[in-house]
Amino acid sequence: MLPTIEWQPDAVVMVDQRKLPGQEIYVRCRTAAEVARAIKTMVIRGAPAIGVAAAMGVALGVRQSRASGTRQLTVEFTKICDKLAATRPTAVNLFWAIERMKRAFGTAVQAGASVDDIKARLEAEARAIHDEDVEGCRTLGHVGAEVVPAAARILTHCNAGALATAGYGTALGVIRAAAEAGKVATVFADETRPFLQGARLTAWELVRDQIPTTVITESMAGPLMRSGGVDLVVVGADRIAANGDVANKIGTYTVATMAHAHGVPFYVAAPLSTIDLSTPDGDHIPIEQRPPREVTHVGATRVAPEGASVWNPAFDVTPAALVAGIITEKGIARAPYAESLRALFD
Amino acid sequence: MLPTIEWQPDAVVMVDQRKLPGQEIYVRCRTAAEVARAIKTMVIRGAPAIGVAAAMGVALGVRQSRASGTRQLTVEFTKICDKLAATRPTAVNLFWAIERMKRAFGTAVQAGASVDDIKARLEAEARAIHDEDVEGCRTLGHVGAEVVPAAARILTHCNAGALATAGYGTALGVIRAAAEAGKVATVFADETRPFLQGARLTAWELVRDQIPTTVITESMAGPLMRSGGVDLVVVGADRIAANGDVANKIGTYTVATMAHAHGVPFYVAAPLSTIDLSTPDGDHIPIEQRPPREVTHVGATRVAPEGASVWNPAFDVTPAALVAGIITEKGIARAPYAESLRALFD
Repeated sequence: MLPTIEWQPDAVVMVDQRKLPGQEIYVRCRTAAEVARAIKTMVIRGAPAIGVAAAMGVALGVRQSRASGTRQLTVEFTKICDKLAATRPTAVNLFWAIERMKRAFGTAVQAGASVDDIKARLEAEARAIHDEDVEGCRTLGHVGAEVVPAAARILTHCNAGALATAGYGTALGVIRAAAEAGKVATVFADETRPFLQGARLTAWELVRDQIPTTVITESMAGPLMRSGGVDLVVVGADRIAANGDVANKIGTYTVATMAHAHGVPFYVAAPLSTIDLSTPDGDHIPIEQRPPREVTHVGATRVAPEGASVWNPAFDVTPAALVAGIITEKGIARAPYAESLRALFD
Repeated sequence: MLPTIEWQPDAVVMVDQRKLPGQEIYVRCRTAAEVARAIKTMVIRGAPAIGVAAAMGVALGVRQSRASGTRQLTVEFTKICDKLAATRPTAVNLFWAIERMKRAFGTAVQAGASVDDIKARLEAEARAIHDEDVEGCRTLGHVGAEVVPAAARILTHCNAGALATAGYGTALGVIRAAAEAGKVATVFADETRPFLQGARLTAWELVRDQIPTTVITESMAGPLMRSGGVDLVVVGADRIAANGDVANKIGTYTVATMAHAHGVPFYVAAPLSTIDLSTPDGDHIPIEQRPPREVTHVGATRVAPEGASVWNPAFDVTPAALVAGIITEKGIARAPYAESLRALFD
């Protein structure tokens, strides 16, 4: 399986997703600050993967602390958490993972654990988040495969694959499980401007898995649906609000609208850690703005002239009304989502 | 004004639109075959500009003929026309311009003109097509400016500008005329993958004209409309069928669908030479497939992995039902288009 992110005694190691598919380069983050920087600059991206990275970043930062007592360690721990939380605003898995590390820290401190014990406890928690994510993706994938028809032509947007998670993937987890069941005829991967996660990462993952893959630009998804060439859409998510509104990579809203216009079912695949019941609806999800250079340049090539402005929101919100179902490791939630999403946590 | 294409005694000269905005390089086509190649490889693109290039290519090819009599010249003329007609299938202006050159040729032959007279007549016809296109764009622009509200935020797709025509532009003609009337707050230019005509050409033209311009990826147009940020969409066309269906650059159908979903009026701006009453509807418009490399590479950078397929249709069809109006040099056609388009030719 693709090693998205790995815990090592003195580092967190990640494949540099900015360089794929041309180069397979591994980045060793030796401090929590380096992990934070890797998240911010998109060495690693994808909501669940960001959560795992943040957890490992916290564990790594605490591990390197020279604090002799719990009080000093708590001060440092809080700073580390704040640094990691300030990297990217939209994917809720980041905050979910940090919150979980805080709970583990609090429990250990309350139990009177030593500094070394706390360090070990946080490392174990980060590794658990990693392993549970892989396990959750596999379960979610098999749950989702049930909605995939025979000989399916599936369209996906961005990368919700092994690279976006600790392994196996969410949307690509569904596609992988469906392919294992012999149900996938072909996958269409939206290239996903501006960062090209679809062309660079999704197509790369699927070609490695020998699943037939066709890369298209976002603008071709609609005509492809109109020609009857798509049976099902499945995408990942960065945050799902309590009412079922879905924040995901910019372009998702357009794919969902086109799918709706052509009667193609549009599914979202995400672990429970992506569902944020404390956010009432999509209007309350903060949308990150990314640097103009992602749009004005491709690699070193400038494609837009000096003097033009750029609007570069990294995510958009798809209203729940366009979503046929939300596939999770606990089953598929369907409308009305306010009830079905809440029920997943019971 | 921007010199898209120019007739010279021994050549047709064009700015190389593949190199803009980074480099402003002029290509001298010294033969009809070189003009055909320039059209095919998109040195020049945009339906009206392709028409002008084809007409000039015909005039240039005939001018260089060593035929001593009309019969031999007719054989060569037919070959030249066939070569130019085989360059690109979708934009009807290409065939319209060649047809017009054929009529001029036939009239001259029937009138008993000498070989030299025929050459002069074809050159005059090509120059007329060029000049009428500029004139038509200016008229069309002013006609279209009437539908632009005050302080308009206008979205456009691809490049239907001076570079896509002999000058001034169709969709950008409307925007220019509206800007001259003080009605344009800002323009959003879809970057328009895969060839990036929006980022590279439209933004470049508008920045030169000091019209405030923001480049977005196609995937941002929908969220922008959802946020209330777009008052009007105006695009060009490569072929308009008798029923009002519009073939235009890939992505247009998606923009039109998103505009419809958000109550934003979607206008098409095109000269009469783009309206093809002999094509009943959009299903009968041939859609060009372009090479995979346009999607897999940006400049020299490979962005999709080896082993992935590519689907790269250059155009799509927007059903007439999504079109608020078709802006021409003879007025604005509105639904039902079968009648209103036919009336433009009366």
